Amino acid sequence: MAAENTSVLLARRPSGAPVPEDFSLATEPLRKPVDGQLLLKNHFISLDAGFRNWMDEDSGDEVLPAMPLGEPVMGLVLGEVIDSRHPDFTAGTWLMARLAWQEYSITDATDFLIRLPEPLEAEPAAYLGLLGDTGLSAYFGLRDIGRPAAGETVLVSAAAGAVGSVAGQIAKIMGARAVGITSGAVKSQKIVSELGYDAAVDRTGDVQAELLAACPNGIDVYFDNVGGPLLELVIDQLNEGGRVVLCGAVSTYGAEQPGPKNLFQLVTKQASMAGFLTHTRAEEYPEARSQLARWLEEGKIVAPEYRLEGIESVPQAFSDLFAGRNFGKTIVAL
Amino acid sequence: MAAENTSVLLARRPSGAPVPEDFSLATEPLRKPVDGQLLLKNHFISLDAGFRNWMDEDSGDEVLPAMPLGEPVMGLVLGEVIDSRHPDFTAGTWLMARLAWQEYSITDATDFLIRLPEPLEAEPAAYLGLLGDTGLSAYFGLRDIGRPAAGETVLVSAAAGAVGSVAGQIAKIMGARAVGITSGAVKSQKIVSELGYDAAVDRTGDVQAELLAACPNGIDVYFDNVGGPLLELVIDQLNEGGRVVLCGAVSTYGAEQPGPKNLFQLVTKQASMAGFLTHTRAEEYPEARSQLARWLEEGKIVAPEYRLEGIESVPQAFSDLFAGRNFGKTIVAL
Repeated sequence: MAAENTSVLLARRPSGAPVPEDFSLATEPLRKPVDGQLLLKNHFISLDAGFRNWMDEDSGDEVLPAMPLGEPVMGLVLGEVIDSRHPDFTAGTWLMARLAWQEYSITDATDFLIRLPEPLEAEPAAYLGLLGDTGLSAYFGLRDIGRPAAGETVLVSAAAGAVGSVAGQIAKIMGARAVGITSGAVKSQKIVSELGYDAAVDRTGDVQAELLAACPNGIDVYFDNVGGPLLELVIDQLNEGGRVVLCGAVSTYGAEQPGPKNLFQLVTKQASMAGFLTHTRAEEYPEARSQLARWLEEGKIVAPEYRLEGIESVPQAFSDLFAGRNFGKTIVAL
Repeated sequence: MAAENTSVLLARRPSGAPVPEDFSLATEPLRKPVDGQLLLKNHFISLDAGFRNWMDEDSGDEVLPAMPLGEPVMGLVLGEVIDSRHPDFTAGTWLMARLAWQEYSITDATDFLIRLPEPLEAEPAAYLGLLGDTGLSAYFGLRDIGRPAAGETVLVSAAAGAVGSVAGQIAKIMGARAVGITSGAVKSQKIVSELGYDAAVDRTGDVQAELLAACPNGIDVYFDNVGGPLLELVIDQLNEGGRVVLCGAVSTYGAEQPGPKNLFQLVTKQASMAGFLTHTRAEEYPEARSQLARWLEEGKIVAPEYRLEGIESVPQAFSDLFAGRNFGKTIVAL
């Protein structure tokens, strides 16, 4: 067992999009678990934009307190129990947990923990992406809120991201036409060729015109991963009975933006908008994960990954997420 | 039969809230219906804020074209067939119809028409208020979107208005705590004493503080009749799983306002927001109306009216609606 444990600390509060300088590294001797605790060797760290939320000073809520400066950053990790002094866990168990960005974690198991199924249905890293919170967000958001009918148009923002890359593929499996919004020509082309989107809208272009061209029959479902001004353009092109799935809102983290001026169209179009969180549905995880794992095995879905290596890469990986450098789920392998 | 027919014309396009000078009167000889038409003697004109929507130059949509200048204003009337040359209608039938503000209407029955039940379950004017589009909006909005559970807090804006005055009472029947937002001390007191609201919030006061005081357990359902900046304050106090019913949006008619900056809270609170229109549910009218008529008969609900007299009062009555001078449903008896 390693004698040291390196952590990523919150060095200063990000202003808008995080940059690597907002974080620092610290190495300490590795503690041993005491009675009631377990020691986790983290193999992967998941980078999720949502955690940016709790980096602001007055950001605490019922999910997490505001992250303190100089302390390890809270996030989502995937690790293996290597020493357990807790009656419910034995060495060798894989856990996904809301724990800090560290090489090793010690927890009393009262944190948010999800046990990976035994045997694993896919390689462990898949449980952070396709079979993790982001893939499940795409799945629950479309199944419960978007509910696309065959032939309907599903528009996905941040279509190359962890959630969007899965949402577009599930929309296709459900028989819908999938249109993705992403940034730049390269990603626009890749979401069509690698993820099967029917059309791409480049956010760096004339979005309104591109949306009209890509969605000639209007928009039935908008799976929104970004929030902000884009939503207003989409509402203008929403069909009667349209559904907006609010899944995170990357662009509003750290900067309050004016909301859409055209919300009254939700009345005239009898449309709806709903937000949801995946972590409140832990009891539905096994079934949803099995469905996604089956699609993966059958080749109906791919699980692209933007993977960096080593704890020292975490600040860069998290910043890359906000700069849109990732294609698929962003993880760091330790 | 009268030989003349007076109409209310759109004299100029309102700028923001309509004023009486936006309208003019014109009197013409009364025509006779030809084959396939019927002649309606209008007994009541319903004043509904939603029609303000189509008074702007570029406002046409699938419901109505933009109203032309110098022509009779489209609205909702309640009248009796007095001469029919249409096979499906006989004299004596009461109809609620989307027809212009006139003393008499001639229609080929392809317009939006609702037959009143025979025998009538209440006095005819009730079919414009409690048993009409506004009462049904309150009913459908709470039953299908708000869905308050017993003990939950339902907040209603424009609580003294045609829809709000019914919504608060239905919320109470459903076992919820009803809190109404209205303007001024007089209406604040009246919505409690006459409509049974548990508490009132005065829009002309410190709304945020009054909301906190009136909704100590947060807000579970917001029945929004006004749109605009109020929505942002309400989202801040919305509970986990809260529902926002978007029913009209008086304050946004004629002036695009910035939307709420805190829509991301719909994600963290797993809340939803949905708009709806009543006129697309014509087949559900009879059952809904019977329920409301039963409550009226049993004394469980009251149907307050702000009633003016004579076609020449219509411009004033419509303007009063936007100035908040009404208490309950605004109608003009002809």
